[in-house]
Amino acid sequence: MNTPNKQHISDWFQGLQDSICGDLEKLDGQSQFVQDTWERPAGGGGRTRTFKDGDLIEKGGVNFSAVHGSTPVKILQALNLEESNFFATGVSIVIHPNNPWVPIIHMNVRYFEMDNGVWWFGGGIDLTPHIIIEQRATAFHKSLKQVCDNHNEDYYTKFKNWADDYFYLSHRDETRGIGGIFFDRLTEAEGISKADRWEFVKELGSSFVSIYSEASGDLRDKKWLESDRNWQEIRRGRYVEFNLVHDKGTKFGLDTDGRTESILVSMPPAAQWHYNFQPSDDNHIKTQSLLKKGIDWVNH
Amino acid sequence: MNTPNKQHISDWFQGLQDSICGDLEKLDGQSQFVQDTWERPAGGGGRTRTFKDGDLIEKGGVNFSAVHGSTPVKILQALNLEESNFFATGVSIVIHPNNPWVPIIHMNVRYFEMDNGVWWFGGGIDLTPHIIIEQRATAFHKSLKQVCDNHNEDYYTKFKNWADDYFYLSHRDETRGIGGIFFDRLTEAEGISKADRWEFVKELGSSFVSIYSEASGDLRDKKWLESDRNWQEIRRGRYVEFNLVHDKGTKFGLDTDGRTESILVSMPPAAQWHYNFQPSDDNHIKTQSLLKKGIDWVNH
Repeated sequence: MNTPNKQHISDWFQGLQDSICGDLEKLDGQSQFVQDTWERPAGGGGRTRTFKDGDLIEKGGVNFSAVHGSTPVKILQALNLEESNFFATGVSIVIHPNNPWVPIIHMNVRYFEMDNGVWWFGGGIDLTPHIIIEQRATAFHKSLKQVCDNHNEDYYTKFKNWADDYFYLSHRDETRGIGGIFFDRLTEAEGISKADRWEFVKELGSSFVSIYSEASGDLRDKKWLESDRNWQEIRRGRYVEFNLVHDKGTKFGLDTDGRTESILVSMPPAAQWHYNFQPSDDNHIKTQSLLKKGIDWVNH
Repeated sequence: MNTPNKQHISDWFQGLQDSICGDLEKLDGQSQFVQDTWERPAGGGGRTRTFKDGDLIEKGGVNFSAVHGSTPVKILQALNLEESNFFATGVSIVIHPNNPWVPIIHMNVRYFEMDNGVWWFGGGIDLTPHIIIEQRATAFHKSLKQVCDNHNEDYYTKFKNWADDYFYLSHRDETRGIGGIFFDRLTEAEGISKADRWEFVKELGSSFVSIYSEASGDLRDKKWLESDRNWQEIRRGRYVEFNLVHDKGTKFGLDTDGRTESILVSMPPAAQWHYNFQPSDDNHIKTQSLLKKGIDWVNH
């Protein structure tokens, strides 16, 4: 395996965006992505692809970007580094389905490097069912464990716990959903080369559509009640809270003059808030009880 | 005028909550406030009063709190002060109406003091019409100017500009609505005593219901279109963005383990997000064009 350079990584991510969009259109069968290209005044740009009013997907986005310029001061301070130029590229996905039984899914894969030689990969994938079906949650985590195990036997446990900590609404003391995997600043380590990290990130990106197909599958046709739709919109409200209050990527983007419409493509089409809402449906009560860290979904 | 102490201020705020809730129930004519009292483990507590499914008001909250304990580290750092106990009390209001023609209103009045003798008043009131009617915006600002002018001829201009800067979504380059007045850390100044500040804060609090009545008035019965309702929910989405991304009170509350359901009583009942939405209705287009700082509403 050759050590990948930034151009190679960025090209591959662009191809990933293409293939995921094509596959999601096939999976949905009703609507299509619309593309906006944009340029970043300080360097680089992206392709924002949005989707709405599908059969499976109510609203979604699959974004690619490759930006460069002076490294934001916040990053330099956090790393205690001198001024340097940076390059960052990635693919980011959030899909809000129509049917309340189908989960929201999110994936991000990204690469960052600076002129001073610092580089890292980051990313993750997590599932937010409005209504948790435990066997499905287990199947999702088993698929992620397989992707991880193909590269390193420590990845799954480490990245699963990282996701539990990351996709967490401290102000609600609840997790966003059933978690998944999350990793950041993956660089070289003992016995792990840059090429090894890249192979892992590529396999994760490539597995997105099959993982989402498995997680949504036949649920798109499952009968739902009016109370399920309301509950879906309440859970979407929590998704909004996570993204605007806690998500580091969203905060960083909004703080550093990123393209707002591309960043907030993650917002749900509609959300509700009720004061002190308590679910009464058994499926909703059970879901609420499972929104916590530390559940061993693979062996659940 | 006597210099008010914390007990007096807190008692008065509690009475203000009572009178505002009573007056809003009369104004609405259909529904009533429900109260939750809560205690803060570290000291103090509050009375959260929420309202839903009214004739005028779809969802709203009028909160009172009086809390005390060790001053949060963030405040001490910001002021470069040594450890000290604090006391904080205030009334906070957000009202989301049913009819898209009726504006969202927010008011907050608050008092803070520390054992070391530091104290200040803060607060403000701002109006967020989903659809701006310019004469109404002017009337609202004239009412606020009158309240300000009764106390100090510099207040209105200073606090109006402060509101323009505060109720601003930098990531959208738009104001939340037509602004109002905002002030913070008002302490003694040349020719202005603590009693003077307190008289101003009291008059602002006392004028809330008449200002809201004037701003909502007959609009509650104005005919609206389906497109107005959608636009209302999109504007409510921006309200969510402001509160979760920019509002210092919300951030501080969520960061310091405040009572989440009381803090997020400001959330709208329902909100929408569409990628890159552009209004097509003339009233909505005009509203969008008026969401900017520096409009001299009094002389508009």
